Amino acid sequence: MRTAEQYIASLRERSLELWVDGERVADPTAHPKVRPAIEAVAATYEVAHEAEYAALATAHSDIIDAPVNRFTHLFREPDDLVKKVELQRVLGRRTGTCFQRCVGMDGLNALFIATWEAQGTFHERFVRWMAGVQTRDEVVCGAMTDAKGDRSLRPAAQPDAYLRVVERRDDGVVLRGAKIHQTGAANSHQILVMPGMAMRPGEEDFVIAAAMPVETPGVTMIVGRQPSDERKGGPDAGNVRYAGQEVVVLFRDVFVPNERVFLDGREDGHLQAAATLVDAFAGFHRASYGGCKPGNLDVLIGATALVAKEHGVRKASHVRDKLIEMTHLSETVHGLGLAASNKSTRHDAGVWQVDKVLANVCKHNVTRLPYEIVRLAEDLAGGLMATMPSLADLDHPEYGEALRSVVGSETRAKTLRLIEAMSYGAQAVPLRIECMHGAGSPQAQRIVLEREIDWAARMNAARRLAGLPEQ
Amino acid sequence: MRTAEQYIASLRERSLELWVDGERVADPTAHPKVRPAIEAVAATYEVAHEAEYAALATAHSDIIDAPVNRFTHLFREPDDLVKKVELQRVLGRRTGTCFQRCVGMDGLNALFIATWEAQGTFHERFVRWMAGVQTRDEVVCGAMTDAKGDRSLRPAAQPDAYLRVVERRDDGVVLRGAKIHQTGAANSHQILVMPGMAMRPGEEDFVIAAAMPVETPGVTMIVGRQPSDERKGGPDAGNVRYAGQEVVVLFRDVFVPNERVFLDGREDGHLQAAATLVDAFAGFHRASYGGCKPGNLDVLIGATALVAKEHGVRKASHVRDKLIEMTHLSETVHGLGLAASNKSTRHDAGVWQVDKVLANVCKHNVTRLPYEIVRLAEDLAGGLMATMPSLADLDHPEYGEALRSVVGSETRAKTLRLIEAMSYGAQAVPLRIECMHGAGSPQAQRIVLEREIDWAARMNAARRLAGLPEQ
Amino acid sequence: MRTAEQYIASLRERSLELWVDGERVADPTAHPKVRPAIEAVAATYEVAHEAEYAALATAHSDIIDAPVNRFTHLFREPDDLVKKVELQRVLGRRTGTCFQRCVGMDGLNALFIATWEAQGTFHERFVRWMAGVQTRDEVVCGAMTDAKGDRSLRPAAQPDAYLRVVERRDDGVVLRGAKIHQTGAANSHQILVMPGMAMRPGEEDFVIAAAMPVETPGVTMIVGRQPSDERKGGPDAGNVRYAGQEVVVLFRDVFVPNERVFLDGREDGHLQAAATLVDAFAGFHRASYGGCKPGNLDVLIGATALVAKEHGVRKASHVRDKLIEMTHLSETVHGLGLAASNKSTRHDAGVWQVDKVLANVCKHNVTRLPYEIVRLAEDLAGGLMATMPSLADLDHPEYGEALRSVVGSETRAKTLRLIEAMSYGAQAVPLRIECMHGAGSPQAQRIVLEREIDWAARMNAARRLAGLPEQ
Amino acid sequence: MRTAEQYIASLRERSLELWVDGERVADPTAHPKVRPAIEAVAATYEVAHEAEYAALATAHSDIIDAPVNRFTHLFREPDDLVKKVELQRVLGRRTGTCFQRCVGMDGLNALFIATWEAQGTFHERFVRWMAGVQTRDEVVCGAMTDAKGDRSLRPAAQPDAYLRVVERRDDGVVLRGAKIHQTGAANSHQILVMPGMAMRPGEEDFVIAAAMPVETPGVTMIVGRQPSDERKGGPDAGNVRYAGQEVVVLFRDVFVPNERVFLDGREDGHLQAAATLVDAFAGFHRASYGGCKPGNLDVLIGATALVAKEHGVRKASHVRDKLIEMTHLSETVHGLGLAASNKSTRHDAGVWQVDKVLANVCKHNVTRLPYEIVRLAEDLAGGLMATMPSLADLDHPEYGEALRSVVGSETRAKTLRLIEAMSYGAQAVPLRIECMHGAGSPQAQRIVLEREIDWAARMNAARRLAGLPEQ
Repeated sequence: MRTAEQYIASLRERSLELWVDGERVADPTAHPKVRPAIEAVAATYEVAHEAEYAALATAHSDIIDAPVNRFTHLFREPDDLVKKVELQRVLGRRTGTCFQRCVGMDGLNALFIATWEAQGTFHERFVRWMAGVQTRDEVVCGAMTDAKGDRSLRPAAQPDAYLRVVERRDDGVVLRGAKIHQTGAANSHQILVMPGMAMRPGEEDFVIAAAMPVETPGVTMIVGRQPSDERKGGPDAGNVRYAGQEVVVLFRDVFVPNERVFLDGREDGHLQAAATLVDAFAGFHRASYGGCKPGNLDVLIGATALVAKEHGVRKASHVRDKLIEMTHLSETVHGLGLAASNKSTRHDAGVWQVDKVLANVCKHNVTRLPYEIVRLAEDLAGGLMATMPSLADLDHPEYGEALRSVVGSETRAKTLRLIEAMSYGAQAVPLRIECMHGAGSPQAQRIVLEREIDWAARMNAARRLAGLPEQ
Repeated sequence: MRTAEQYIASLRERSLELWVDGERVADPTAHPKVRPAIEAVAATYEVAHEAEYAALATAHSDIIDAPVNRFTHLFREPDDLVKKVELQRVLGRRTGTCFQRCVGMDGLNALFIATWEAQGTFHERFVRWMAGVQTRDEVVCGAMTDAKGDRSLRPAAQPDAYLRVVERRDDGVVLRGAKIHQTGAANSHQILVMPGMAMRPGEEDFVIAAAMPVETPGVTMIVGRQPSDERKGGPDAGNVRYAGQEVVVLFRDVFVPNERVFLDGREDGHLQAAATLVDAFAGFHRASYGGCKPGNLDVLIGATALVAKEHGVRKASHVRDKLIEMTHLSETVHGLGLAASNKSTRHDAGVWQVDKVLANVCKHNVTRLPYEIVRLAEDLAGGLMATMPSLADLDHPEYGEALRSVVGSETRAKTLRLIEAMSYGAQAVPLRIECMHGAGSPQAQRIVLEREIDWAARMNAARRLAGLPEQ
Repeated sequence: MRTAEQYIASLRERSLELWVDGERVADPTAHPKVRPAIEAVAATYEVAHEAEYAALATAHSDIIDAPVNRFTHLFREPDDLVKKVELQRVLGRRTGTCFQRCVGMDGLNALFIATWEAQGTFHERFVRWMAGVQTRDEVVCGAMTDAKGDRSLRPAAQPDAYLRVVERRDDGVVLRGAKIHQTGAANSHQILVMPGMAMRPGEEDFVIAAAMPVETPGVTMIVGRQPSDERKGGPDAGNVRYAGQEVVVLFRDVFVPNERVFLDGREDGHLQAAATLVDAFAGFHRASYGGCKPGNLDVLIGATALVAKEHGVRKASHVRDKLIEMTHLSETVHGLGLAASNKSTRHDAGVWQVDKVLANVCKHNVTRLPYEIVRLAEDLAGGLMATMPSLADLDHPEYGEALRSVVGSETRAKTLRLIEAMSYGAQAVPLRIECMHGAGSPQAQRIVLEREIDWAARMNAARRLAGLPEQ
Repeated sequence: MRTAEQYIASLRERSLELWVDGERVADPTAHPKVRPAIEAVAATYEVAHEAEYAALATAHSDIIDAPVNRFTHLFREPDDLVKKVELQRVLGRRTGTCFQRCVGMDGLNALFIATWEAQGTFHERFVRWMAGVQTRDEVVCGAMTDAKGDRSLRPAAQPDAYLRVVERRDDGVVLRGAKIHQTGAANSHQILVMPGMAMRPGEEDFVIAAAMPVETPGVTMIVGRQPSDERKGGPDAGNVRYAGQEVVVLFRDVFVPNERVFLDGREDGHLQAAATLVDAFAGFHRASYGGCKPGNLDVLIGATALVAKEHGVRKASHVRDKLIEMTHLSETVHGLGLAASNKSTRHDAGVWQVDKVLANVCKHNVTRLPYEIVRLAEDLAGGLMATMPSLADLDHPEYGEALRSVVGSETRAKTLRLIEAMSYGAQAVPLRIECMHGAGSPQAQRIVLEREIDWAARMNAARRLAGLPEQ
């Protein structure tokens, strides 16, 4: 298994087409807007070599019969799902942001199931490719989300809004389009494209699951803007080391050879397998948020407690009460991530799947509770967080000293910057928008809940007690 | 293991001093205000004989080396805790109310731990008594809560507000005082008194754990008033079969022989063991609410869906949305009950304990989310629920027919009565006040959360990311 | 203007067909389930003769050129609307329940506008009748709500679910059907039937506004069941004097002479006038809840503070915090009732109308915030509220004394009964279901809000700031 | 009254010591980080010359007997308070941000009252100075908030954390220290320092109210960092024209002549007058948020509706429902601002004061409801908002065209940038932190509420209904 240093070095070896602020980036590891995101991914390598976390961060792969980083591992037993969530919490707390490797992990597992259902040689192809990922301990960018454009139109009415096959050759397929919200794409080795939603007959060309190295010709990555992203690497970054990353990945006629095509809508049963894929992925990934976000929130809660102490109000009853409330809400999310993982069932492919109801309940709470936690953090942080000049100004020859007496201790100033970053700064996308839209927007969870609940059983329970015949 | 019929028969054999509405009750099984609560307990016997639920409802006791009803069983492995929650959901759904046997079960386990910690012969005494409970498959009334009076005063300042030892004899102790909120006391065989809170040096006489048959001289039971309790047994009961029950149990100089005294504050280490007891019980019982209440809420949600159908609005988008929301909130609670149980740890006494943070988070959500579910039920039920005359009026010779055209179908009318009973009628105490105060009021959970959270770790996580040295 | 005593005496003079529990009631003022509701109405007469409240409770009518009770008065200036809300708060606080006279008042004003719009002689008829109401200071039962049955069907598909004209004679009309949720009907002098929703062409017979004395032949009243209604008049009533009342009023071929027919769907323009009526009434009545409910909640908040004091925890920080929260939420509702009233506009008929957006926002908050207030009351009340035996038991010769030491002071015991009654007892319908469904269920307010908001203006405000051309 | 152009020109005439990013700013009107905030203030001048808003935006001053901009006007009648709130909504909607002139207006009124109470010549001094402000139509920076440092310490223990008098001369006083959170300070003509909290005997030197031109020697302004502030003036600004501004104002031994000293703690009665000032200001300003923030939220709600339309989901039931909810919450706040203003009372000084309970209830809701509105905006905006590259990238020669097909219409792209700016970007401080901490943090409102509520009256109302004697 790679070390963090080896991982970072490996990124320099890629000839990636990456754009930031309109400029082509030669060495991502040296770019101030990219490096913090690389650091966050590197933490996933780091923990695998720490004795304290080895049991969480690594596992034995029966595919390559060797220890692997958990982020490349299959969920072979319920405990794998539980440990995933616990590992995510450790890393969420360590980095305070998104460490970008979960979509790949959850995607590997979902595609394992889907290709198994698709039968034929596709599953073998996939397992072969996956063995390589495990052996090389690679970061896989799980590329699902299409732009989708006008949601009232199907893909055929707006093909540019979806990734699709535009040419089929004997030796492979040519892909065109884009995937958006590609978390950590610029920091990965492989791209694993997958369909982002169930498709219907007639939409076969939009059903494609395939893998390619990030340096494949035609792959263009454009880093998304994030709030306060100019501060990265500077004194006001807030989180001094880590950050998340979102990328638009353009596929401009990218050729993928057959051995890395895992689902193809034109094959028998692959439309259905794609639906399985989307469903399985949603389950896995909705439970994942019960790990990483409570980890991020540990940082925010800790920062809030710290700044309250600096303000001299840590023991005020309303401050204690708000900190307890923040914790209560965060642990609610974490408990549900664990519950969904514990209450798992075995798919015949040999991968365990989370409880669908609980995974969706977990994620749905993630679209709400962290927002309230952030609100409470902003309450306890106080107004200074929002009106404080740059920390660089504290050393200004003209007014630095006077300003320091206003801002107070270095601990207060730096901690406020961290809370700011997490509430509405450079970490707001990982802490807010990922919570809201990651693994599906709130309404997606409600749709699953409505579908999964056995309404008839509940109505009959009521009928019995009301003295009515069951139906 | 007893059947439901045997259980009910066994209640008639007791010479219980029970008062309802100021009248002494000769046969509780025939009293309209008591019988529905007996039926709810009987359901715990019933499921133990149903093939579908045998794995949940029964277990093998290593104490008597025989199968026992789970309600008399120890939590010998994590799965026992998980199954407890799942069984509670089954029974909560079946009865739509409190089935009254959980305090006893959770109390047995807590006292097993506490007496083990107290060492000496008390643990053996307890296990011996417990073997009898298992063998006879008895209902144990776990009697913890004292009246407490003015919360700003300690017991010594208001002894009548607490159960205490008033006389010590060679062969036993004499108890005086009362226990309140005694769920199901009138339907039990044994009373197991336990201290309701940690006591301090000087308060030794208030630390007493002991067991006695319900017919022990000096034990007086007075059934509490519940909303709409006159309706029980009549056409407007709502829940046609089951109900909960709360009892004030007076101990008017009750003698308990030594072999049934399990903790005594005057013994070395028993003050501390009592604190352990309270703490262990709170953990077990706070997770229990993640089972029974989602079960009750299944009924309420089903009834709401049913009445929406009768109103012709089941498919209206806001109706579907509210039903989904009700489910989301209920499953949140259930997931946390499961999570607290899964993430358990083994006590050296050989009993597994729930995760304290998650159990408290579970219960704390129970003090909130069911209230919102009830609010949504009242929304979808519509005003007729609150203004409808008695169902008996539907058969009135003068106006019954006209009234039926107002009230609509029998399904609508009876289902509305059920929702009414659960929202603010005869089932409101089980569904509201138990949710709020059972296993401790909301503030009790917040105190535990504040105590259990590792604030320093969170603050250090923040310090690292803010670029500050750890402390 | 009548005194409270005169009002009560006047009720005995009516030959009303009133049924309670299947029995015909000879003298409503002597019936334990009816008298408390009469007392609440009587309070509206009482305040009119108190110097402190004269300015709120009375007004000068330009119709009869004499002082009248405000409950029979028109909203002739914005201040009339404001004073209405303030008067409602006074009475809500005094009675702790619904005083049943607001639907009539709001209905009079709405029908004044609607008949004015309908033009012709109907408006004159109405004003003539209204002059009599003012002169005799009568209670008007504003009868709007039809049973509605299956909401997916129109009236013609289920005529029994709506009040309608079944025969037209030269001298009047014959009405058949029912009105439900008739608050205080049994305590009124006049019934003013009005259409409960806008009707369409072809549904003319369902559009009828007309008045009749309560003793008109064919009018049958059946009192609805309410939670814990058997306790009324007994030691556990909670509210020792007042209560609300809901009645089903059957119209079994009731003849109304033309001079008391105010809207008739078969007349030109009356379909439209009926829509105006429903809309105007909804506005008035949705603001009314900003008066009475904060008044009721004053009682609940006071009771909660009182019981916290008795528990010895009044100064605990979480108790203070919850009491503040209860107040914050209640005053939110009250402020919105005032705002809707202040921001009123004059209808050409000479009656001022509330701001529609704010009135709906007021009522919509009423469907939520009181529920949270009740939840907090149940929190602070503690479990004893739910498990306490009857207050009659405190005097029981066998165990009364022992029980008193459990229950504590008389203040605690009686206050708990009051909180119980308001939370889920005999006052729960006024405090819960009226809040939820009175003046329209929550969804009705959302529909109005969506319709009234100027979305285009908001979208253009956004366009300007986003640098886009307005549309 | 000045025009917007005259106002902007006037700013160039000041010789202000202003620092941004460590650099001294020569012409604030030309600085990309300052200009947008100037534009927002300019809007307050602009509306005063628009026929549509003249009645709201101007008033007749009895001090100078001439029309004045309302932002320099006294609240001479209740309608002045109502119009203030309505004007604030107009400007909040026009600018989408903070227009920075309210603290000055509310401060003028509060100081008018406080100096009147202080009696003597100070009131005359103040009125004379205020006449100049009105005549010249100046922007007044109301400077209240001290840094406060450790809240558990009083000012004397940390003098640097408070503005105070360090020298008293015959002709005036010398001030040292700082005021923070100085909204719009860099865009004002005058600074009006006022004590930020009630002081105690011994703290007289911290009680100082005085005015000075912004160019007074020793006044140093440092602009605070705001999220995404580097984007201002660029393609990703979101709000293309307006922004808020927060400034730290250092007072480095600033001399103020006596004629501009309005309160001085060493004068008799001024400690008490300062408490009056703080209290009066809090009331005025807490109601102000019921105007500006609903105006800002109109923009956010409009932008959300617009983007939903672009996504093709505007008519989806959950989208409509969330937009209604956003509106409901925003109008709740607005209604309370109006209610607090309408229910005002006249101070003997001749200024009307808002209802204290309702003003605090208004502001307290502002600390919560906008957060939920923002959450819903983020829900409906979708993930693209957070992951979209710079709008400049849409014109990139290499990949601009491909990117445009991903991002969709210009309307979608620009509207998302606006929502981003308001949710967690350059407008987040005005929309979040001002809502939270402006005019006092949430706990401050709770303290006032607890103090202002007549608990005894509520407890007696409960006592009466519970059958207990009043106390």
